[in-house]
Parts: sequence; C-alpha cells; structure tokens
Amino acid sequence: MGKTIAINAGSSTLKFKLFEMPQEHVIASGAIERISLDSSPIHIRYGLDYEYVETESVPNHLTAVNIILDELIKLHIIESYDEITGVGHRVVAGGEIFHDSVLIDEHVLHQIEGLSEYAPLHNPANAIGIRAFKKILPNVPAVAVFDTAFHADMPAVNYLYSLPYRYYEEYGARKFGAHGTSHRYVASRAAKLMGRPLDELKLITLHLGAGSSITAINQGHSVDTSMGFTPLAGITMATRSGDLDPSLMAYLMKKLKIADPDAMLKILNTQSGLLGIAGSADMKELEARCDHDPQAQLAIDIFVNRIVKYVGAYLAELQGADAIVITAGIGERDAKMRQRIADKLSYFGVAIDPHKNQVSGVERDLSTADAKIRTILIPTNEELMIARDVERIGHPQV
Amino acid sequence: MGKTIAINAGSSTLKFKLFEMPQEHVIASGAIERISLDSSPIHIRYGLDYEYVETESVPNHLTAVNIILDELIKLHIIESYDEITGVGHRVVAGGEIFHDSVLIDEHVLHQIEGLSEYAPLHNPANAIGIRAFKKILPNVPAVAVFDTAFHADMPAVNYLYSLPYRYYEEYGARKFGAHGTSHRYVASRAAKLMGRPLDELKLITLHLGAGSSITAINQGHSVDTSMGFTPLAGITMATRSGDLDPSLMAYLMKKLKIADPDAMLKILNTQSGLLGIAGSADMKELEARCDHDPQAQLAIDIFVNRIVKYVGAYLAELQGADAIVITAGIGERDAKMRQRIADKLSYFGVAIDPHKNQVSGVERDLSTADAKIRTILIPTNEELMIARDVERIGHPQV
Repeated sequence: MGKTIAINAGSSTLKFKLFEMPQEHVIASGAIERISLDSSPIHIRYGLDYEYVETESVPNHLTAVNIILDELIKLHIIESYDEITGVGHRVVAGGEIFHDSVLIDEHVLHQIEGLSEYAPLHNPANAIGIRAFKKILPNVPAVAVFDTAFHADMPAVNYLYSLPYRYYEEYGARKFGAHGTSHRYVASRAAKLMGRPLDELKLITLHLGAGSSITAINQGHSVDTSMGFTPLAGITMATRSGDLDPSLMAYLMKKLKIADPDAMLKILNTQSGLLGIAGSADMKELEARCDHDPQAQLAIDIFVNRIVKYVGAYLAELQGADAIVITAGIGERDAKMRQRIADKLSYFGVAIDPHKNQVSGVERDLSTADAKIRTILIPTNEELMIARDVERIGHPQV
Repeated sequence: MGKTIAINAGSSTLKFKLFEMPQEHVIASGAIERISLDSSPIHIRYGLDYEYVETESVPNHLTAVNIILDELIKLHIIESYDEITGVGHRVVAGGEIFHDSVLIDEHVLHQIEGLSEYAPLHNPANAIGIRAFKKILPNVPAVAVFDTAFHADMPAVNYLYSLPYRYYEEYGARKFGAHGTSHRYVASRAAKLMGRPLDELKLITLHLGAGSSITAINQGHSVDTSMGFTPLAGITMATRSGDLDPSLMAYLMKKLKIADPDAMLKILNTQSGLLGIAGSADMKELEARCDHDPQAQLAIDIFVNRIVKYVGAYLAELQGADAIVITAGIGERDAKMRQRIADKLSYFGVAIDPHKNQVSGVERDLSTADAKIRTILIPTNEELMIARDVERIGHPQV
C-alpha cells in the first residue's frame, strides 16, 4: 500500500502521474512546463474533473518537484511527502546496459548520464529529474524505466546494421528502438484481452502517435522494431522522416549548403514526416482536409504504406502473428486510420468489423469473427507500466 | 538481320556483348579494363570456348572502341564495321526524364550528362562510351537503356520520401531504384515459364548479386523497389550497408572525425555490407566458413533477414504474389541461399523442392507442387534486354 509517482522529465518540463498502488488508481496527474524560462504554467488534474492551473516562476527541476509535492498537499491529495513510497522515472536511452527497469543508485545515475550521447536531448534531462527527487525524497526507492529496455534482448541479426563491425563494438552503433514501455504494456494487455498467455503469442504492436514505431513481439519478447539507433528511423511520423537512403543526407547537405550533419538531422527530425509532405504534423487536420487536398491524402497514404510494409516485414519475420495491436494518439482515436491499415492487410487475414471499430480509447478486439489475425485496440499507459515496475523492483516481495 | 552490340561503359572499363539479332545469338563478348591507366587487359570470348586475351596501352574510350571492333574483324567475328547495325548503351541514371529506353541524339546525350549528379561515377562514363561509339559508328542507331527506367512509373506513395516536399520538387530527392533492366527481364521470362501473361501477374523479383535489390511488380510494372535515391539503400549487399538510420551518418562522422559526408558515404558503399560484418564481400567464402565462423554465419543471416523482410513488405503491398523470382550472381548459383530464403517464407506458402533446387544458372520453377507462391529461378541477362531494346527502339517495325 502506498503512492507511486511516475515521472517524465524533459529539459524544461516535468510531467507526473500519481498512483495508489497496488490498486493502480490514478490519484492525480499533471505537468510543469517552461522550467527555467520566464514563467511556468502548472497543471494538476485530480478527482473526477478537477483541474488546478497556476503560473509562477520555476527556476529549476528541484523547485519544480517541491512545487508539485506542495501543491498535492495543498489540494489534500496527499497529507505529507512521506506518503510517496516510490518514484519511477522514464529514461529514454538505456543502451546495452539496461535490459530491464532498475533501482537507481549513484552508479546507475552515472550510467544514465554516460548514455547521453545516444539521447543528447533526453538522458541529461531525465537525470536532472532523478537528482531532484533524490534530494527531496532521499529514502524513497527510485526506479528507472527505459524506453529501450524492452528491445535490448532482440537478436543480433536485427539489432546489427550492415556496417564495419567495429562501429558496433567501439561506438555502440546498433538498433536500440524506443517506445519499449508502451509496446510492452499493450502486448501484455492484448494477451489478457485475448485470454491467452503472452508467452504463447506472436504480436505486432503499432504505436502510432506523433512518434510512431512498430514492434514484432514473440512470446513476450521484442524481436525487432522499426525505430533504429535513434527514434528517427522507421515509419513516417508527424515531423520525422523515418527510413531514408543515407545518400540523401550527403546530397541534401550539399543542396542546402549545410555543413553540420546535426543541422541536417534537425530538419529530418522536426520539419519532415507528415509536416514535410503536407504542411501539417497533425493527422486530424490531414484527415479533415484530405478530400479536397491531394497532398494531405498523399501524406496519409504514405503513413499507411509504411505501416503496412513494416507489418508485412514482421509477419515474414515472425512467420505469422496472432494479433496486430494498435495504440497511442492516432491509433487510439482515429477509427478511419485503423480501417485503412486493416483493409491493406486483408490478404493476410486481417479484418476489422466497422461497427466494433467505432470507438476511441478503449480496449477492444476490433476483428470480425472470421479474421485470421486479430486486430486489437489497446490504449497505452506508459505511466502505469512505470508504476508497476516501481512495485516490482522498488518494493520486491520477500 | 544484323548485329547489335550491348555496351556497359565505366570510367575505366568498356564491356560489350555482340548479338546476332533478332535470333538473339551471342556471337562474342568481352571487356577492356584499366582504360587510361598504364596497361589495359583486353578479353574477348567467342565461339564455344575461345578466349582472346591481350594487354596493350588504351589511352581512352575512343581507342577502346576501335580496338574492340578491330579485334572482332581480326578474329573473323565480323568482316567490317558496317555489320554492326545497332548499339545499346547501359546508362545508370535516367532520373524522372526517361521512363523507357530511348534513341540517342545530341539532346538525349546532354540530358544523360545533366543527370550526372544522381550517378556521379556512372553517367559521365556512360556518356563517354556513347560519344566514342557515335564517333566511330556515326550512322548506326544508338539506344540508351536506363537502370532506373523500369521504376520510373512507380506510384508517388512509394517514390516519395517523408521529407519537406520541396526537396523533391527542387532537388529531385526521390526513390529511383536500380537494376531495372534485370528486374524487367526476369519478370518477363518468369511469366513465359509460368505460361501466363505478365500483365496478370504479381511478382517479387530478387536480384541478388554484389549489388542486390528487390522489386514488387504488378502486371508488369515496378510498383516499389528496395534501392532508393541511390543504389546504397535496401538490403545488405557485398560492400554496401543498405538501409540505415540516417542519424548514424551524423553519429559516425563525429566518432570517425569525418567532416565530408561523401567520405562517410564511401565507407557505407565500399566497406560495409557483408564485408563490414564478416570481413569478406564474397558470399561463397562466407558460405565456406560459416560452419566454424559465427561472424560469417551472422553476415549470412543478416543478408537473408533483410531479403525476407522486404519480401514480406512487398507481399503486403501487392496483397499477395504469384511468384518470387530469383536472379543474379548469388541468386543463380547459391542453392543453399535460395533454400534459406524459401524456408523463412514458408508461412506465406513459399516452398522449394530441394531436388529441383540443385541447379545453377538455368531457368526453372523450383517450387513444390503445392506451393501457394511459386519460386522461380531465372538467370538475368541485361545485355540481351539491351539488345532487344535496340531492336524495338532503334529499328522500329513499319
């Protein structure tokens, strides 16, 4: 019995979700944004519909943590800091070191910081969040939950690029993937919904949001995933290019007179994808204007095309699948998109019932009765997975 | 009735194959290498087993063409230059201009040279070869046959990258593919062997050589292919990386202290692939040592893995296939490799008969009787396809 807080710290943000564990009830959630900038909006949601919003100056993450905990007391969500019995931190890059979530000590924290070159924008920020909580709640177990850990055991045949081998040995150039916590969560929920043990299933999980990735899961283990060394690779995303002929890096740098490869990567990360093709990174907007805007339709078609090709590739790799599991922003809310994807996969025996598909954000088997491969909608819940890992690793059962 | 010569000109090489047309008999073939370097070996094969080898100084392609034609006369293969009634030139990049082979005039030649930035090593050399033959055989029709032309009509959803759209409009950043002449040839032969019209078939063609590519063909048209803006993309090759997270370009340039993206590309083109993983670019060598060399086995496994994933992706895209067609150096000669690929595709109903598979370099349906998707071996013959295009375009029937 206790309250576990799941934390996602960015360079100027701190998002949290507070759970009553082991009941898994959400007590509150919220975020502080624009930390260290002029003024920081603070949002806290609690109870059924209550939302607390304030703006004040938040100079650093340490202050942010104090503000959140103090506000939780002020709003009578907790009575004292002592009620927080576990903290779970999302960490982006776990490299080849972390194959599972881990209890954080000073050594682990150094390792997380040491992995920063795999996620220069994220790991340092994650570490700042960890240090802030360590300072304020020094005796509460803190657990790091890595985006990459779920993929860390994939076979070499899939994580290795066809590069000089020493680039892997000396520089860690390999596929790490991302969204691992989400893929892991929806896979386990899908198995529950199907009433079958996860370790008997072949699943292909589609995390379709602003960032999107597809994972091939065999018996509960990630065997391949569409993101690569970084989250830039894979399918078309809101602003990220996904897979690209590497020659285009050199060609476009010449054409655009860009000397710094990182400046080119920034374009591939922030100005490409749906935004690059059709001028909007918002799938809802593209859906709204695709009837009269061929470029919007093209962006949607390319998004679907890349998903369908990865699913085909993973069906080949897994030699079949029991279910395709759809999640995340676009996947959970865009029934039309789910229908498009399923239609393009009909050859393999994927078939969605249009009536069952008229839902948003609920767990449901969308398949027709005779579908050979099930299509299952599972809203993702990375924060809950983090809270569960805190229970499992921060408070091990004797 | 006449003799057509198919030419493949590189920066320091000139390869040829001489056909009696329309009978399609090969009369002679050969090559001059190391043109403009100190001394140039000259090979000519003719008759059943005859081979003529000499070494002399060949300062340029013009001299090379004269030497070849003079040697053909000396060897009594032709009596005079007049017997050559058509010349076909392989050209690597046809860009968005050339959707089919074309009769070469001065304007076309300028266009070929203008496309050099898409194939900096190849198009200028191809153009030099064209000019040399124009000078020596000014009145003989010359036809350019493009590696890219077969792919030029693929739908935008497949040729377009998820980049800012103006990179396509202004810089031609799109998928062009390669090996088009080979994919086109083996598709048409496979249809003949199957006794069915090509325009009723869905085919996936696997060109597996030092350079490798996979093409999805619907009703005789290439709808997708694994190579990209350049032949670097796609599956693992002898020395080329194939697909790669573009972030790795920037990351490795930093690690290797390489400032010029072209220098990084050179590594990806010449030191990667099988060579990079296992120290040999030769599949035969890897096959020979894979039993006691795990790294050789890993390189083979990665090669197979990438092929199988592309086939799965194209099965999804085509919504099925009538046949998988295998060709080129590795594909034609490596029965073990064909078996490996087919085994990994058994889920889709691909099945090879091991006895039928004990062949090398012949046209044969390798499938078991009950295979749902046929597996067909077709030795490629790009030179013959070039000679046929010379007949079709250089000597149109009235």
